[in-house]
Amino acid sequence: MSNQLLILSRDYKLYAQAIQQANLANCVIAHAGSSAGEVPIQLNFDIAFGEPNLLASVLPQLPSVRWVQSTWAGVEPLLASGQRTDYTLTNARGVFGKLMVEYVFGYLLAHERRIFARWQNQNAQQWDARPPGTLQGKRLGLMGVGSIGGELAKAGVFFGMEVWGYTRASEDCQAVSRYFHGEQFAQFLGNLDYLVCVLPNTQQTVGLLNSQTLAFLPKHAVLLNVGRGKSIDESALAEHLTAGKLGGAVLDVFVQEPLPLSHPFWHTPNLLITSHTAALSDPLALTNLFVRNYQHWHEKKSLQYQVDFHLGY
Amino acid sequence: MSNQLLILSRDYKLYAQAIQQANLANCVIAHAGSSAGEVPIQLNFDIAFGEPNLLASVLPQLPSVRWVQSTWAGVEPLLASGQRTDYTLTNARGVFGKLMVEYVFGYLLAHERRIFARWQNQNAQQWDARPPGTLQGKRLGLMGVGSIGGELAKAGVFFGMEVWGYTRASEDCQAVSRYFHGEQFAQFLGNLDYLVCVLPNTQQTVGLLNSQTLAFLPKHAVLLNVGRGKSIDESALAEHLTAGKLGGAVLDVFVQEPLPLSHPFWHTPNLLITSHTAALSDPLALTNLFVRNYQHWHEKKSLQYQVDFHLGY
Repeated sequence: MSNQLLILSRDYKLYAQAIQQANLANCVIAHAGSSAGEVPIQLNFDIAFGEPNLLASVLPQLPSVRWVQSTWAGVEPLLASGQRTDYTLTNARGVFGKLMVEYVFGYLLAHERRIFARWQNQNAQQWDARPPGTLQGKRLGLMGVGSIGGELAKAGVFFGMEVWGYTRASEDCQAVSRYFHGEQFAQFLGNLDYLVCVLPNTQQTVGLLNSQTLAFLPKHAVLLNVGRGKSIDESALAEHLTAGKLGGAVLDVFVQEPLPLSHPFWHTPNLLITSHTAALSDPLALTNLFVRNYQHWHEKKSLQYQVDFHLGY
Repeated sequence: MSNQLLILSRDYKLYAQAIQQANLANCVIAHAGSSAGEVPIQLNFDIAFGEPNLLASVLPQLPSVRWVQSTWAGVEPLLASGQRTDYTLTNARGVFGKLMVEYVFGYLLAHERRIFARWQNQNAQQWDARPPGTLQGKRLGLMGVGSIGGELAKAGVFFGMEVWGYTRASEDCQAVSRYFHGEQFAQFLGNLDYLVCVLPNTQQTVGLLNSQTLAFLPKHAVLLNVGRGKSIDESALAEHLTAGKLGGAVLDVFVQEPLPLSHPFWHTPNLLITSHTAALSDPLALTNLFVRNYQHWHEKKSLQYQVDFHLGY
């Protein structure tokens, strides 16, 4: 019996073509589309591949699906209460790290080199010879040290930074020189030059950066959020930046996206908004991930990047 | 007999203090200052350490000086016709590489991530979700592969780029995958995404990038100059950018600095001016360089980073 595959994605054409070309053993693309409403639920799908928000609405009607490969890292739509948990869910990991490194270090260097201020002075025809800063010797703190955090840590070391990590429990990244957990906010946050938040959205991470924890950060520190918007209490952050209690913030993710026109962030000083573009899905890398995992599935081996329904990542 | 040291530098206080603390054998700081006019020429200095522009005016009156350690990489003022060539001249190398990497990759990433355009859209309250580019798979060309070029090549490889080099003759940097020389401009320039010019100022490099050679660069390519201003025909570059024949330019050095108010570059599109701040001298690193070289001198060993008066670097 062949495995019946459902592809439900904005990029379904690319995926269908690439998976077809991969000639997977015993795998038939039974349906590929971008609309949940058009999925033929009478078919007995075994495997689903696509965006969690699209899959969440059809999965309850497809009880034969035993494995879902998400094209996103965050799988919140599939974890909502009442959703099925009787299948294997794998998410996208290991495909965003390099892009995240380009994003984070692009903005870290932009900050040290003062490239916005220098550009403004150029526009005013001013020769701006004020010295830049350097990343060498600065301390980078990572909240969340998974596959993306690990890539960021390695890049930090490449640029001569000291890298600290805040994790739930794991301490397995060699590039991180010190780990912190639980309530160690003062020790961790109090000594950073840069904080990069790479946390998934879980019950434990919602509002983790609030007025109390943000207050531990040094006044010159810069915060970057490439994880999930809900990790940050947005009002508290706007207040901190407005009061000059923080050096700056670069935010890719927000509680509500696109950011509503009425949101205070549009007028908050020293804040850069990057509109959830830090690491967009790369269809080729995601196809490779699916193909590798399908081979594991076909050989009845353990799948890569399984999500723990209880932990939420 | 002790070696009599002259320190002539804007940062003479820092250098005098640091060299004093290094407790060099047989070395006496005979004079330290920032003004060439105040140098007591009746003293028999053996060694001079400082900025080439300051030293150039006193060196003819100090025939006993046998070694000059420059705090700059470029030593043009000491190479002017009529200047002495009967001493050992060492310049500053190996101290600018890491800063140059931060500068170059800061602007490369700023270009790929479209951070200026994104910022302008933020100021207009626009959610700008257009995808960024990536350095992965792009081709970086280096004109000049010395100690700075070598650091840039390694960083290029770190970011997943292919690195090509254009040199006079040398081919010894492992991170460079292909070398070009002499008249191979079409093959070298014609296939680049980024060109970084790290050339010293010599008779051979003056105007090397002119209307003819610039025309080989692809229309989307971006040019960075961190070497010397004279390597580029500035009128030709302004014309190329204005006509949209080049993706952009980031210039740290110019024929005349500060850039005169009447210069066309102030109004040239897609041009960034960084006012000779790419890699400012780091007094600590330069002191270490001098101290290391003094130990060689004292032990009658060959000095590091000797300048060839004929080649000019």
